[in-house]
Amino acid sequence: MKQRIRIGMVGGGEGAFIGAVHRIAARIDDRFELVAGALSSDVERSKQSALALGIDIDRAYDTFTAMAVQEKQRTDGIQAVIIVTPNHMHFPVAQAFLQQGIHVICDKPVTRTLEEALALEQQVRESGALFALTHNYTGYPLVRHAQHLVQTGVLGTLRTIQVEYAQDWLTQKIEDTGNKQAQWRTDPSKSGLAGCLGDIGTHAFNLACFISGQDVEEVAADLTAFVLGRQLDDNVHTMLRFSGGAKGMLWASQVAPGNENSLKIRLYGDKGGLEWAQESPNELWLSAFGEPTQRLTRAGATMSPVANAASRIPAGHPEGYLEGFATLYLDIANAIDALEKGADINSVQGLIPSISDGVVGMKFIQAVLKSSEQNSAWQKVAP
Amino acid sequence: MKQRIRIGMVGGGEGAFIGAVHRIAARIDDRFELVAGALSSDVERSKQSALALGIDIDRAYDTFTAMAVQEKQRTDGIQAVIIVTPNHMHFPVAQAFLQQGIHVICDKPVTRTLEEALALEQQVRESGALFALTHNYTGYPLVRHAQHLVQTGVLGTLRTIQVEYAQDWLTQKIEDTGNKQAQWRTDPSKSGLAGCLGDIGTHAFNLACFISGQDVEEVAADLTAFVLGRQLDDNVHTMLRFSGGAKGMLWASQVAPGNENSLKIRLYGDKGGLEWAQESPNELWLSAFGEPTQRLTRAGATMSPVANAASRIPAGHPEGYLEGFATLYLDIANAIDALEKGADINSVQGLIPSISDGVVGMKFIQAVLKSSEQNSAWQKVAP
Amino acid sequence: MKQRIRIGMVGGGEGAFIGAVHRIAARIDDRFELVAGALSSDVERSKQSALALGIDIDRAYDTFTAMAVQEKQRTDGIQAVIIVTPNHMHFPVAQAFLQQGIHVICDKPVTRTLEEALALEQQVRESGALFALTHNYTGYPLVRHAQHLVQTGVLGTLRTIQVEYAQDWLTQKIEDTGNKQAQWRTDPSKSGLAGCLGDIGTHAFNLACFISGQDVEEVAADLTAFVLGRQLDDNVHTMLRFSGGAKGMLWASQVAPGNENSLKIRLYGDKGGLEWAQESPNELWLSAFGEPTQRLTRAGATMSPVANAASRIPAGHPEGYLEGFATLYLDIANAIDALEKGADINSVQGLIPSISDGVVGMKFIQAVLKSSEQNSAWQKVAP
Amino acid sequence: MKQRIRIGMVGGGEGAFIGAVHRIAARIDDRFELVAGALSSDVERSKQSALALGIDIDRAYDTFTAMAVQEKQRTDGIQAVIIVTPNHMHFPVAQAFLQQGIHVICDKPVTRTLEEALALEQQVRESGALFALTHNYTGYPLVRHAQHLVQTGVLGTLRTIQVEYAQDWLTQKIEDTGNKQAQWRTDPSKSGLAGCLGDIGTHAFNLACFISGQDVEEVAADLTAFVLGRQLDDNVHTMLRFSGGAKGMLWASQVAPGNENSLKIRLYGDKGGLEWAQESPNELWLSAFGEPTQRLTRAGATMSPVANAASRIPAGHPEGYLEGFATLYLDIANAIDALEKGADINSVQGLIPSISDGVVGMKFIQAVLKSSEQNSAWQKVAP
Repeated sequence: MKQRIRIGMVGGGEGAFIGAVHRIAARIDDRFELVAGALSSDVERSKQSALALGIDIDRAYDTFTAMAVQEKQRTDGIQAVIIVTPNHMHFPVAQAFLQQGIHVICDKPVTRTLEEALALEQQVRESGALFALTHNYTGYPLVRHAQHLVQTGVLGTLRTIQVEYAQDWLTQKIEDTGNKQAQWRTDPSKSGLAGCLGDIGTHAFNLACFISGQDVEEVAADLTAFVLGRQLDDNVHTMLRFSGGAKGMLWASQVAPGNENSLKIRLYGDKGGLEWAQESPNELWLSAFGEPTQRLTRAGATMSPVANAASRIPAGHPEGYLEGFATLYLDIANAIDALEKGADINSVQGLIPSISDGVVGMKFIQAVLKSSEQNSAWQKVAP
Repeated sequence: MKQRIRIGMVGGGEGAFIGAVHRIAARIDDRFELVAGALSSDVERSKQSALALGIDIDRAYDTFTAMAVQEKQRTDGIQAVIIVTPNHMHFPVAQAFLQQGIHVICDKPVTRTLEEALALEQQVRESGALFALTHNYTGYPLVRHAQHLVQTGVLGTLRTIQVEYAQDWLTQKIEDTGNKQAQWRTDPSKSGLAGCLGDIGTHAFNLACFISGQDVEEVAADLTAFVLGRQLDDNVHTMLRFSGGAKGMLWASQVAPGNENSLKIRLYGDKGGLEWAQESPNELWLSAFGEPTQRLTRAGATMSPVANAASRIPAGHPEGYLEGFATLYLDIANAIDALEKGADINSVQGLIPSISDGVVGMKFIQAVLKSSEQNSAWQKVAP
Repeated sequence: MKQRIRIGMVGGGEGAFIGAVHRIAARIDDRFELVAGALSSDVERSKQSALALGIDIDRAYDTFTAMAVQEKQRTDGIQAVIIVTPNHMHFPVAQAFLQQGIHVICDKPVTRTLEEALALEQQVRESGALFALTHNYTGYPLVRHAQHLVQTGVLGTLRTIQVEYAQDWLTQKIEDTGNKQAQWRTDPSKSGLAGCLGDIGTHAFNLACFISGQDVEEVAADLTAFVLGRQLDDNVHTMLRFSGGAKGMLWASQVAPGNENSLKIRLYGDKGGLEWAQESPNELWLSAFGEPTQRLTRAGATMSPVANAASRIPAGHPEGYLEGFATLYLDIANAIDALEKGADINSVQGLIPSISDGVVGMKFIQAVLKSSEQNSAWQKVAP
Repeated sequence: MKQRIRIGMVGGGEGAFIGAVHRIAARIDDRFELVAGALSSDVERSKQSALALGIDIDRAYDTFTAMAVQEKQRTDGIQAVIIVTPNHMHFPVAQAFLQQGIHVICDKPVTRTLEEALALEQQVRESGALFALTHNYTGYPLVRHAQHLVQTGVLGTLRTIQVEYAQDWLTQKIEDTGNKQAQWRTDPSKSGLAGCLGDIGTHAFNLACFISGQDVEEVAADLTAFVLGRQLDDNVHTMLRFSGGAKGMLWASQVAPGNENSLKIRLYGDKGGLEWAQESPNELWLSAFGEPTQRLTRAGATMSPVANAASRIPAGHPEGYLEGFATLYLDIANAIDALEKGADINSVQGLIPSISDGVVGMKFIQAVLKSSEQNSAWQKVAP
């Protein structure tokens, strides 16, 4: 009979947006079973959330440490944990489960500081466990097809990359009016030193690297907290220089009225250009130089196998954010199954964002912060 | 502990697109558990499919009749069945389960003929069971918001309704080259007398009625099978007259190159107009006469409670076809839970498309076929 | 030295939208010189308008008949006249100038009745003069390219054509509140028996015929005057059957809120599909069956010579309505110059809409009116 | 009788794109008459071009200096000159005509160097003549409406401005294969030290300043010549800091495949956001924070008088690049007429881009070049 992978969750209790997203994403392809949780730092709320989710009461833990230890001891203990806490808890939670050899699926940014990220990278390596960082936008089929087009030379040598991620929900100072999502994201003690930069700028950065296949070598940045009294940046302007010779610009903002979740990327090489927008994720615009622009569609003509593998239903039947997220979970399920069957840990990561991607993201954040402090002087992104 | 509704499935074995869609849709909000199936008319394939889906081998039935009877006898028997067979099997399968008092979730069109539909309507009424017809497009939040806008008078008195559903996958005669989806859809013995009309025209019809709140009273139609040798229509032109005084046009085609799954509707009244397209389901265009057109978004500003109840994640994070479908399943779960708690069957249907919608659809098909046979003379849609 | 063609204008005095459009269109390519006019039925207003336009006072005529006769007698008399009166005056004015052998450029619809149109056709033939009907939308480069694509077989055998022309300016009964444009268009004594049908439906009809290269053989129509008390139709629903085997639907409306001037056409054949919208006139969507849809652009890659000849500036620099209109004037200038150099009248019409197009349009109007009177029974469009 | 303003042209002989654009733009509203020219540095070609344009042979000058002097002496001499030469000639030509007190209409960038621009500014001031710099994109009605919305506080305090101008025509090294447009634009002796920056970056800069009403105080820039061997930049990345506290990013590129003439701007304040794209110039997207985004249209609902004054035809009838350009000419005509009637030179500039705008543009170019040389260190834009 079909075996589903047993998973637990830390954070993500009732009312937390991202926890529900991970659970739906994990369900879509029916490869996981949620059986344990420490869903809230509030013990009572944690239990209620667990009940509501169909978790056995004896696996609704008061603390993530208890959960890590006790689940390890069960013969039917969880095989992987999903971490969907505020940023500052990613590190200790991940450590606790990695110590038990339990695979970790962790929201981004990976930690609050680069030091933590590096320590975690070391621990992941030693644990032999899978570490998956949910840069979910790489799960969109057309993002993977974009990567494929770059890899197969369709754009030629990349020259300029324009990436942006704009939202408007922090246009006003809602962290003062009880919005919990806003509170922790604008609080350095929970978010780290990067606000908008860490929350969405890292997604844009990751997307640019994922598709282009290039690292960012240097960055010049101008961060701003436009909302009076806000402690962390809410708008990010950067110029980029990539390892392969491309240059770029990255704009991230949470104070841009009219933008809901507008992640967009454009890449231009000497042979062609590409354009993709997260809010219209089922189409990808490809312009071979000198030819008419083509509208490529998910599951449509000319799609690569890698894109089709991330697609569930026929073209014209829109897939969305949850399906893109689910594709990461599908990849993770396949990786864990392969590990169970004895595959080497170094062979299963595939397109799953890794701890290294998390470390690179933290290095990028560090370089951006430093550049902005130094009046936008170019900073190397530590190799 | 959380109880999920126990469901079974008839049809939808491996490789069948729509079966997988229903299963994902049922999983997304975690209210159902698939525990039984007669997934294929091929017994061996049926069992393999069941195993792959995690169904117990003793609940992988050879026939739907056996399934209906035996599930009824179990204390943990299914509460509802999903019917995702080709059209001609909808009727006998639905009958078998309704006889056992098991709720029915059935794909559209409801049956092959109006007579069957009327017989089924009678049986549903007598059974006291819920019957849900999966006109899934009504599950999109913005379709429900559109209905809300019409109901609250934002458009004023409706005048003209333009609805269309265009695809291109039957542009060539692929029913001759082994495409199973094409084979049964173009075969009158399986599809009934309507081809494109039954397959997608009914969706367009249903959508127009759902949003406008009006019935189609008369139709003038011109059906064509453009592909040489095709037995059923692949293109539908109709003019409509609605009960409330509006008029309309409905175009459906499966031979329109460049259209993947292009269901679109526009409604115009004396106060305003609306436009929605299934391939961009997260936006709805509202034009109050004399004012700039507004782009309304799922989970965005000015959304009605009914739209927000059908929405899972924040604006800008696209939901798609599967989520719209899942909303029907969510409604069905709520209805079944209410019935379990003693609610009256007449109080729970809510926005779930009903057997009456199925009957109306068959009446529409019949009228269209008759009009087309009579050189497009207006035909009443039987009341 | 460069010689410009001398033209006069009848109608189009101050405040008349379409007169100004013609004058700008005639100026854009600098091939005409406006030297005479009978610009208004009000003598005083006619003179003032002439002065404002730089016409000599002695060529500002009180009546079009005086103008026709006197201009003919001048050695520097006008070579062509532009008729931009309300519809009912097209016929007598055209007659007056054709009698003098002066070329006629006439707005559409050509006359109020088919009888007039046929009489005019006869007179044009006898006069040896050029007659140009300003179905200006055929002047758009991408409309001409669309025709080229159909002619060269890119779409294969045409199957279905969807054409529509929607506006909203007559949503309310503004003919009662002093709007002159609305007054004559809704007055049968000035417009003829067709309202929306004649005003914009004929443009949609003409566009479908122009691009497809097919005639409409039969039409089934359902006309409505939705605005209470309006004498002429403000909404047109029709189904079409074309000479080449294609079928189609044509919707025209002036009561569709949110539509400014939304003329759109889509054509589908067994090899591909095309889509063009007047409000985004610089792009044309081409879908070869089984391949990604291409966005063709004015002056962009793969454009035909016929499209490029109708284009003035590089791709990405939008041309619009006035330029499309100007292209008709450019064609007319070339035709008149060719005639001056001795070309045969039968060799110069080229893509310029002709009196025959006008006659066909009137036949279409007549058939639509008759079908609608007969409860949408199919009517032949007289050959 | 109507008097048209007499104009001459320097540069813009046959085959020169921008000369033809200016001539059409000047004709559209019929306020100018082209009567003199020194259309090419090649004397023979100059004369032929003049003849083709209907200029009297005795006013087809061999040199611009002869033209300036001789036209001044005529009683019917030109009132204004249009300069459409390559950049390096703007300065001497403008000087020659200003010395004669003849108004100057000059393409951008105003000169090759800041020094020249400053000298010219001085001369303009002394001459008492009108100087109009054709930053034509400010002639679009919706650009003017955008300025109006900012001025009237609809966006609140501006925070971030994203402006970009992308083309692809220099993706390959076509300056080596005989393309004249490419040759002079990539040749420092003709273009000055800025390539893409001067050619289109200045348009983007001007647009951002025009709409925002703010100056750029500082810029950090990273210029690149991606095409091997190209002498001037073909890609511009900059970060901006504005005088009013806003920040911004400006990207300009001529090596971005798929972009024809993609000038776009987005402005975000604490109350709302705006978006406009030159390739869809008849729509403007306005997002009041917390409300649905509105699609504003040229000549549509809620338009300001300043926008409507720049609009010729009804909404839905697209105006384009030539009409936007023509609006500058219309403004210039009104200004010259006012001067003729004795208005003060300081009262007539209105929205016409001035020599000061030209000087500011050169200061911007200088600062960008310096920043890029200094590894993107912020540079003040000289006040």
